[in-house]
Amino acid sequence: MQHKLVIDIGNTLTKLGVFNGKRLLCTRWYEAVTPQDIEEVRQKYPGLDAAIVCTVAREPVFLAKALANFPYFIDWQSYRPDLKIPVSLRYKNPETLGRDRIAVASAVASLYPGENVLCIVFGSCVTYNVVDNQACFLGGAISPGLNMRLRAMHRFTEALPMVDIRQERDTECIDNTQTALYSGALDGLRYEVQGYVERYRKRFPDLKIVLTGGNAGYFEKSFNYRIFAHQNLVLRGLNEILDLNGR
Amino acid sequence: MQHKLVIDIGNTLTKLGVFNGKRLLCTRWYEAVTPQDIEEVRQKYPGLDAAIVCTVAREPVFLAKALANFPYFIDWQSYRPDLKIPVSLRYKNPETLGRDRIAVASAVASLYPGENVLCIVFGSCVTYNVVDNQACFLGGAISPGLNMRLRAMHRFTEALPMVDIRQERDTECIDNTQTALYSGALDGLRYEVQGYVERYRKRFPDLKIVLTGGNAGYFEKSFNYRIFAHQNLVLRGLNEILDLNGR
Repeated sequence: MQHKLVIDIGNTLTKLGVFNGKRLLCTRWYEAVTPQDIEEVRQKYPGLDAAIVCTVAREPVFLAKALANFPYFIDWQSYRPDLKIPVSLRYKNPETLGRDRIAVASAVASLYPGENVLCIVFGSCVTYNVVDNQACFLGGAISPGLNMRLRAMHRFTEALPMVDIRQERDTECIDNTQTALYSGALDGLRYEVQGYVERYRKRFPDLKIVLTGGNAGYFEKSFNYRIFAHQNLVLRGLNEILDLNGR
Repeated sequence: MQHKLVIDIGNTLTKLGVFNGKRLLCTRWYEAVTPQDIEEVRQKYPGLDAAIVCTVAREPVFLAKALANFPYFIDWQSYRPDLKIPVSLRYKNPETLGRDRIAVASAVASLYPGENVLCIVFGSCVTYNVVDNQACFLGGAISPGLNMRLRAMHRFTEALPMVDIRQERDTECIDNTQTALYSGALDGLRYEVQGYVERYRKRFPDLKIVLTGGNAGYFEKSFNYRIFAHQNLVLRGLNEILDLNGR
């Protein structure tokens, strides 16, 4: 496999990456990926001969068809016990375990072999993913992501406005409703993250904290100890899985 | 005012109480209150001669009409600078401040005069309400309530199931998706609450913690120090406001 196309379809965005070996050559994000987008990438990287698509949302109908003529293609829409993965799963119902979380755990196991890691993914939802020093994926909680919290308070109530998280606010003094919602989402999630980190540090005193996902930037400065921030861990994990299962 | 009818229309439930002085004689909860419900209460308490309705959601059309013939009636649908309240508001846009939060602050100021109090209301949303020892309402954050978190993760994603918070789960080992969501909502909110409590305890070392709202029971045991749990604080606060503005 020379060049590899890796696609991660999440609930909010579709992320696409092109890899050469372990090297991520480019990434692109789409709200909705189109056949033209895929064609463009194939023209730019004519050496593409393997692809993996992982989805936790709806996969566009054209996609599997567009990629089916790749010499090697993994369409990871549902549970695939036939796929080799670089982690062992301590999960009761692995078919209900998000494929994106398996990918993140795979990336973590390959980046931090022999270490106990808590990887927090800040996406549409926040997922807490524990991979121990034996490369066992121990699961972890799922909670609403930053934007989902704000959206829920607006959508599921009559009176609360929608707040844009990108507009920074001083939450020291919460004297208006917009700031109240902003703090409730952002500070609230920060306290949650600190709580889970403390919980797992009690269990694994040498725990490494890894942050990833679109909103990780809001949380990188919330810690008193060293943390590791990575971009594109789902894509990197999918690339690992593609390599493991290559011909 | 002999007997008083107090109604709090929230985003999920309508709560009704009958007071005699400061004494709450009965409470009723409705998913949607009907004219028959009101008639029933009036027949049971023929001495009812004052009423207050406070709403942060849609008020049923019949309600103001049904109560308009009370000798004294406050219809609190929007900002009412003419109403006397037992707290002063340190809020930039008091017209955007939830009437239910003003009611809670009023109840707190009357129950704990001269004390610094953080009152956490576990309703559709969680509100953090700080009332200082001068009866100033200092505001506080708003975050999604327990059920709202679970509902948002189900509704705003393709694959995550709806989890019933009433079905207890052991979150020590999170090895399936239902437990992951349950922990993310319940433990996540617990960590959030602890974070805000610590934050305000730094500012007010003598802070009293008061919990109220339908889901407060989930959090009463989350604290290492003494907390105070109250039912019906919104109703009690509305009763205070009714008394303050009585003829």
